[in-house]
Amino acid sequence: MSTVAFIGLGNMGGPMAANLIKAGFTVKVFDLVPAAMQTLAEQGALTANSACGAAAGADIVITMLPAGKHVRSLYVGDDNAKGLIDVVAAGTLLIDCSTIDADSARFVAKHAAEKELAFIDAPVSGGTAGAAAGTLTFICGGSDSAFEQAQGVLNAMGGNIFHAGAAGAGQVAKICNNMLLSVLMVATSESLQMGIDHGLDPQILSDIMKVSSGGNWTLDKYNPCPGVMESVPSSNGYQGGFMVDLMVKDLGLSQEAALLSNSSTPMGALARSLYVNHAKQGNGKRDFSSIFEQFAHSEQIKK
Amino acid sequence: MSTVAFIGLGNMGGPMAANLIKAGFTVKVFDLVPAAMQTLAEQGALTANSACGAAAGADIVITMLPAGKHVRSLYVGDDNAKGLIDVVAAGTLLIDCSTIDADSARFVAKHAAEKELAFIDAPVSGGTAGAAAGTLTFICGGSDSAFEQAQGVLNAMGGNIFHAGAAGAGQVAKICNNMLLSVLMVATSESLQMGIDHGLDPQILSDIMKVSSGGNWTLDKYNPCPGVMESVPSSNGYQGGFMVDLMVKDLGLSQEAALLSNSSTPMGALARSLYVNHAKQGNGKRDFSSIFEQFAHSEQIKK
Amino acid sequence: MSTVAFIGLGNMGGPMAANLIKAGFTVKVFDLVPAAMQTLAEQGALTANSACGAAAGADIVITMLPAGKHVRSLYVGDDNAKGLIDVVAAGTLLIDCSTIDADSARFVAKHAAEKELAFIDAPVSGGTAGAAAGTLTFICGGSDSAFEQAQGVLNAMGGNIFHAGAAGAGQVAKICNNMLLSVLMVATSESLQMGIDHGLDPQILSDIMKVSSGGNWTLDKYNPCPGVMESVPSSNGYQGGFMVDLMVKDLGLSQEAALLSNSSTPMGALARSLYVNHAKQGNGKRDFSSIFEQFAHSEQIKK
Amino acid sequence: MSTVAFIGLGNMGGPMAANLIKAGFTVKVFDLVPAAMQTLAEQGALTANSACGAAAGADIVITMLPAGKHVRSLYVGDDNAKGLIDVVAAGTLLIDCSTIDADSARFVAKHAAEKELAFIDAPVSGGTAGAAAGTLTFICGGSDSAFEQAQGVLNAMGGNIFHAGAAGAGQVAKICNNMLLSVLMVATSESLQMGIDHGLDPQILSDIMKVSSGGNWTLDKYNPCPGVMESVPSSNGYQGGFMVDLMVKDLGLSQEAALLSNSSTPMGALARSLYVNHAKQGNGKRDFSSIFEQFAHSEQIKK
Repeated sequence: MSTVAFIGLGNMGGPMAANLIKAGFTVKVFDLVPAAMQTLAEQGALTANSACGAAAGADIVITMLPAGKHVRSLYVGDDNAKGLIDVVAAGTLLIDCSTIDADSARFVAKHAAEKELAFIDAPVSGGTAGAAAGTLTFICGGSDSAFEQAQGVLNAMGGNIFHAGAAGAGQVAKICNNMLLSVLMVATSESLQMGIDHGLDPQILSDIMKVSSGGNWTLDKYNPCPGVMESVPSSNGYQGGFMVDLMVKDLGLSQEAALLSNSSTPMGALARSLYVNHAKQGNGKRDFSSIFEQFAHSEQIKK
Repeated sequence: MSTVAFIGLGNMGGPMAANLIKAGFTVKVFDLVPAAMQTLAEQGALTANSACGAAAGADIVITMLPAGKHVRSLYVGDDNAKGLIDVVAAGTLLIDCSTIDADSARFVAKHAAEKELAFIDAPVSGGTAGAAAGTLTFICGGSDSAFEQAQGVLNAMGGNIFHAGAAGAGQVAKICNNMLLSVLMVATSESLQMGIDHGLDPQILSDIMKVSSGGNWTLDKYNPCPGVMESVPSSNGYQGGFMVDLMVKDLGLSQEAALLSNSSTPMGALARSLYVNHAKQGNGKRDFSSIFEQFAHSEQIKK
Repeated sequence: MSTVAFIGLGNMGGPMAANLIKAGFTVKVFDLVPAAMQTLAEQGALTANSACGAAAGADIVITMLPAGKHVRSLYVGDDNAKGLIDVVAAGTLLIDCSTIDADSARFVAKHAAEKELAFIDAPVSGGTAGAAAGTLTFICGGSDSAFEQAQGVLNAMGGNIFHAGAAGAGQVAKICNNMLLSVLMVATSESLQMGIDHGLDPQILSDIMKVSSGGNWTLDKYNPCPGVMESVPSSNGYQGGFMVDLMVKDLGLSQEAALLSNSSTPMGALARSLYVNHAKQGNGKRDFSSIFEQFAHSEQIKK
Repeated sequence: MSTVAFIGLGNMGGPMAANLIKAGFTVKVFDLVPAAMQTLAEQGALTANSACGAAAGADIVITMLPAGKHVRSLYVGDDNAKGLIDVVAAGTLLIDCSTIDADSARFVAKHAAEKELAFIDAPVSGGTAGAAAGTLTFICGGSDSAFEQAQGVLNAMGGNIFHAGAAGAGQVAKICNNMLLSVLMVATSESLQMGIDHGLDPQILSDIMKVSSGGNWTLDKYNPCPGVMESVPSSNGYQGGFMVDLMVKDLGLSQEAALLSNSSTPMGALARSLYVNHAKQGNGKRDFSSIFEQFAHSEQIKK
């Protein structure tokens, strides 16, 4: 089995690395937080003193970082430090699982290609639950051969693995999807609440729209109206799930992408404004389906 | 078998009445257009000289009319004319299949109840193809007993039959659904186009989002991007399907409902504005998925 | 001087009637609330036992009522009661100062015309302060001759008197203006806050935009950012002024009008959604410039 | 009088430099287009072979360039070339009049400060007419002393000169203003058209709103409805004025700024979407008040 360097052991990266260990990979980890490394070491990981230390000698490097600037500087380096692409062996496969702007992904891919290294942008969806269960979805951008090469290691961490296109396409597809998701959530919320305002039972209205032309993922899996669906955040005080702050981040990336390509996204742009205001009102750490409360009457919310 | 009076034999009503004849009902029809009655007569319908003439003596009355004002005046009458509720026999079941404002449906139901007549609002979805094939969806509002009583005749014209709630609930549920549908269509269009603007293949992007959290009815059944899906309007110059003008009508009803209930529907309201402008630019008779062209570049549209 | 019947003595109607008394008119008042009549009686008004009682024998009738349905039934009557147009003398001038839907105004004008009575819709702006000071703006719809005839009595209550067009035009012009105002308020708020978020002083930014192409009434007279302008609601905890609930009412009328005329108003529709949500969050009784808080950070609001 | 280096002699820069010559400054120009330099030379300018050649020895450097990347590389240089800040004499005042992102302005200001050079971002409004007439508005960011020092040279090119705050504040204030302007234009258009749709005369409606709470710069100076105001683009087929493409550029900058500061700008974001779609429909080179046509009926547009 190959040796994998895993850099970035947060809520997502930690369980992903653990699944690689379970699948039999030799995993060498690095994180700025020592305790995060310690947790993985107890599960069988080797630890390194630096990102470059972890990557040197690995067959595959996987990174899971907060934003584009971290990915750029880690891979390509700067005036003060070498980048990963300067230290890995020829033939090393580079996989970045962070959700970042497409431009940064293309920037790293271009610099990697100059050193004849294969780079894949492979943002994930499925959240911390999917990371732990090994059922993440990966949406990849990069060459066909690199995508083929990545199958084994990605399969150890997830279920669906998509090839969206060339470098950066994984990031673009993910934010197109998440922008669309945000609109589905807002529009489903306002439609359900309008029904409630007219005396309809949200359970019945959901059942009808789910199998009609209003059908969408939020009605199937993630109903935002409290009490309609068990085991979703809306029936648990909007705790857990996918945080509003993270949706605001993804909607920021989507609007950044729209500016770059001169695209018009009226619904996505409106969703961003509504989510930013929702976050400013103190809902940043709650699940993103809590946008439903923007439409509900105050007496509903108090219940 | 029961005798059914069917009033309003347009593109939807005509084939619906024909399916009742095929199912063995005695059908007595009326329409202001003689040719429309003649077509049904050739299929075995009895004809009447007036709406009241058709309804007198029927077990069930079904109406399919353009707008709330027509439904109000036909059922309840006015200074100059009696209404259907003044002429039908005790125990007659009244079913209005028009898509109209909920207030008009409740108005007729209230007047019918004063005469101890059962009234159901039962707007349909499924379009002219569904009307011809007998696969319409009915979304009904009214009492449990009336809903039970209507099963037989509705089954002869359609597949899914939903009971959304009390009088008017059928109309509310339908416009909640269609408002949501309009947003799905616009948001899916802008997301696909943003992907295209970044060089992604809309087919691949659709495949990814369809099974991800962006999944919705338009990606499954009605992709708005030309060439992605066969046998849908977008691959046929946006001909056929559900006309922009009809979506504008339904979005008008949804906003009327939102005003009545003091509901906030930012996405639905924005969709209405975009569709009204689209119609004003000469697209009123094209399929509603042609909203995609608002986001495409002019060179894409020319192709 | 003429005799004026004044019906509806609320926060607006009361001071308006008082100004007529001061100007020397003989004023006969009616209101459903006896105390409201008593207040006017103390200022010199005659009182009546009913609206029709006040109107009978008057040269001019002025009404100030909450909604279209009240105006319709008061003027035209119904099955149970005569309307004002059934009891006033030939040649009486009818002036409705309520802010209502244009359709109701046209309905009353038509029925008045059938009795050869002149009717003017004359909604006001200027608020309770303008009503007290006699500086209201009147925006009138009706014939040229009726508009001429109304000058004297309107001048006694206000400053600017506009003739917007035929019957109903006063109502249309007022809601066009107030819809536009709502957008000015939201857009000015978001622009100022974006400047603040980048470290700019809202006072300086306001001064610049006021004399540049972003200049608008809210920057001149009603800055929504606390501390920029003295003596406006934003510098007084958003108390007083024009309530959010009233803006929601006017935006509802504007959207009703947009539906009637098949007009597209993306900005006005969005403003309505934002104001409805703002009201649902408990801000209905605060001044409408408090929409600024939707954009501010929570720490700003606490200050 | 001082010596001024002027770099970037396009539609705006050319006439601005000419006004400096008229005011008695010694002006040394550079542009990548020789003909542009030739035009200025005929008016008395000295010419240079490069930007750095123009700047060396000047007391003041003024630049007028298309985008942030040009400003960054010209002032700060890159691996291949020195920047202006490497070649100018100590004490030289640097003024960038381009409309660019605030980040780029702050980037240049920071690098200039490291060399103890004063830098001002001073984007203009007033268009080519204002540039020719010497009546431009300058909105400046930078230190108090630099702002003082710049008064003379800016006065020679314009009328109003504002100090918005520290480095970058000029750019922020300008895009806040232009974002607000775009919303004023769209909202005024939709309000006027709704009035027209109800039979009102747009001239009369404009006159009323102009002096009411809907009053704004577009009603005062730039009415978007054809025929209401003479000598504005709407009465000249929407030719001349401020191009849609430039408004799209400024709205892109505003959304970039909103992303940086995590600001919510629902109106500005919607205006951007509407303007991008308008541009895609072939209106990029027309005046930005042509957005009015998005709301007008096709028969109005044909007139």
